[in-house]
Amino acid sequence: MRTISWDEDCDCIEMVDQTKLPGEFTTYHAETVDELIESIQMLRVRGAPALGAAGAYGVALATRQHQLKQAESLLTAVKADAQRIASARPTAVNLERGVSEAFDEAQLGMTVGEVRETALSAAEDLADRDVERNKQIGDAGAKLLGDQDTVMTHCNAGALATVDWGTALGVVYSAREAGKEIDVVVNETRPLNQGSRISTVELMERDVPTTLIPDNASGLLMQEGEVDAVVVGADRVVLDGGDQFGDQGVVYNKVGTYKQAVLADRHDIPFVVAAPTSTVDANTSADRVTIEERDPVELREIYGSQNAPADVPVRNPAFDATPMELVDYLVTEDGAFEPPIELTDVVENRSRH
Amino acid sequence: MRTISWDEDCDCIEMVDQTKLPGEFTTYHAETVDELIESIQMLRVRGAPALGAAGAYGVALATRQHQLKQAESLLTAVKADAQRIASARPTAVNLERGVSEAFDEAQLGMTVGEVRETALSAAEDLADRDVERNKQIGDAGAKLLGDQDTVMTHCNAGALATVDWGTALGVVYSAREAGKEIDVVVNETRPLNQGSRISTVELMERDVPTTLIPDNASGLLMQEGEVDAVVVGADRVVLDGGDQFGDQGVVYNKVGTYKQAVLADRHDIPFVVAAPTSTVDANTSADRVTIEERDPVELREIYGSQNAPADVPVRNPAFDATPMELVDYLVTEDGAFEPPIELTDVVENRSRH
Repeated sequence: MRTISWDEDCDCIEMVDQTKLPGEFTTYHAETVDELIESIQMLRVRGAPALGAAGAYGVALATRQHQLKQAESLLTAVKADAQRIASARPTAVNLERGVSEAFDEAQLGMTVGEVRETALSAAEDLADRDVERNKQIGDAGAKLLGDQDTVMTHCNAGALATVDWGTALGVVYSAREAGKEIDVVVNETRPLNQGSRISTVELMERDVPTTLIPDNASGLLMQEGEVDAVVVGADRVVLDGGDQFGDQGVVYNKVGTYKQAVLADRHDIPFVVAAPTSTVDANTSADRVTIEERDPVELREIYGSQNAPADVPVRNPAFDATPMELVDYLVTEDGAFEPPIELTDVVENRSRH
Repeated sequence: MRTISWDEDCDCIEMVDQTKLPGEFTTYHAETVDELIESIQMLRVRGAPALGAAGAYGVALATRQHQLKQAESLLTAVKADAQRIASARPTAVNLERGVSEAFDEAQLGMTVGEVRETALSAAEDLADRDVERNKQIGDAGAKLLGDQDTVMTHCNAGALATVDWGTALGVVYSAREAGKEIDVVVNETRPLNQGSRISTVELMERDVPTTLIPDNASGLLMQEGEVDAVVVGADRVVLDGGDQFGDQGVVYNKVGTYKQAVLADRHDIPFVVAAPTSTVDANTSADRVTIEERDPVELREIYGSQNAPADVPVRNPAFDATPMELVDYLVTEDGAFEPPIELTDVVENRSRH
């Protein structure tokens, strides 16, 4: 099933409730814009691509909530909802993009019925394209894996971060669909534990042999020869490494990714980044990327229990930076790029989906 | 106060209960060998040097538990206890050594009273020597640090891992005693969080400027130039790297240490191992070292809350292996050894404390 989709029965949004993971795999129905906004804010739905779909479906939901007779009045009401949805998580650019895409389409509707129809079909189209793109990424990445390989992954770049299939985990699913036996080692991914809470669940749901490890054990498993490839997603790829990284590009992804890349390099294990070309940011230098610093309480407490002195100073960066020299393959919907990876080519040749 | 000591009042072992940190700083009294073994297994007392003292005190405790009239019968009974204590944790060579040291002394006793007395005085002597040796390690390591250096450490190789003062953190304390300002960055150290729960507590108790980070952020801090040295302890150092590491020695320490060493190497940051020469095991090859695999529940749950699917397969190794080529300084009570570190010299010339 999809992480987020339109439910015809209730004429509302159905989503996997990720706040209930790993305990329960249940769905939640957002029947109002307010319920959707709450769901985004409390991370019932998360992951940049999934949030894009949430934004677009949110616009479709808004078009159904107002009992108005004129397309124009309806669009005025929906616009206010759309702005509220887009700002539910201010840093999530995909959310805003999904909202805009559906709202722009809805504006083409001449009647209330057409507004509703075009908004929903825009949302469905966005969701379908996400799945299609992920399958393309998966298929391109799958060719890099051998039968009986063990893949190590970090965080959750899987079906539950996207509409379906996933990016890093999509590579695994595609390889298995192609008949290869693939095992996955999942890093816990402190401090928010997306590996242990989310990646494990979707892998086990799909009967993928899965092993959870603490982030600290990844080096030992590589020493033992237990890892054939490291496959991760990316939040942002920039072309210009700036003062720190120079000419080479930089991959920003969940904190701890850089460590995996350095260890993989030492052990001659392929380090694979799987992400849509839309992640590649041609216009920003690494010098201008600010790494989000998150709440210290994420380390001082775990699930509400005390984990450190309440007043201990904390550094809690959400992302880290991996220079392209450590990346063996960048897998996008256009295929797998090998070193020397020319990011300008990746950007210039990207498919228009 | 000492981490572990003999309590005359109860004729039993008193220890800081480290499972209660950082919430409470309380002591636990082990009145029986079984309570001691349980305390070792649940990590009430932990850290190689502290485990050495625990083993020796455990023999003293065993000599008091059996109501026997003959020294010989008592020693036979104690020998069985001693073996159980020594195998409470498989990778911890100091535990076994502490047990042997006290038991060897106890065997010199001709009467039940003498057996009890010699076992206890052997344990007290071992504990005193640990503190003295840690101060020597600290003083030798302190010379490697500059004023205003930031030290990154992993796990807890501090006062609470030893009888007092600590090894890795002893280096910090000695440097500060010598007038240098030293800040410490502490890795959380999943899955048992000895960094966030224990190292932070003892550092803050001593007014050392401390920053807690998730294990995943250590690479980013090194990239940012925030780390001047990595200083860790060691559970065991072997001279013979065996099939995997060849001629070079290997440092076994808390899982994640290897990753720190690889990252420090990449960033040209000195990687310092601070440990007593007793940690150096001249007779064992890396091929014969078993890395303790701990309970999966340590990852499936955190502080009793669900962190992963209850049935997810887990790898949870307690230690990893760092080859000597990544070690810039091995600091012992005999001084700081620089590469090429000849471990045979370290062993052959070790002081007889």
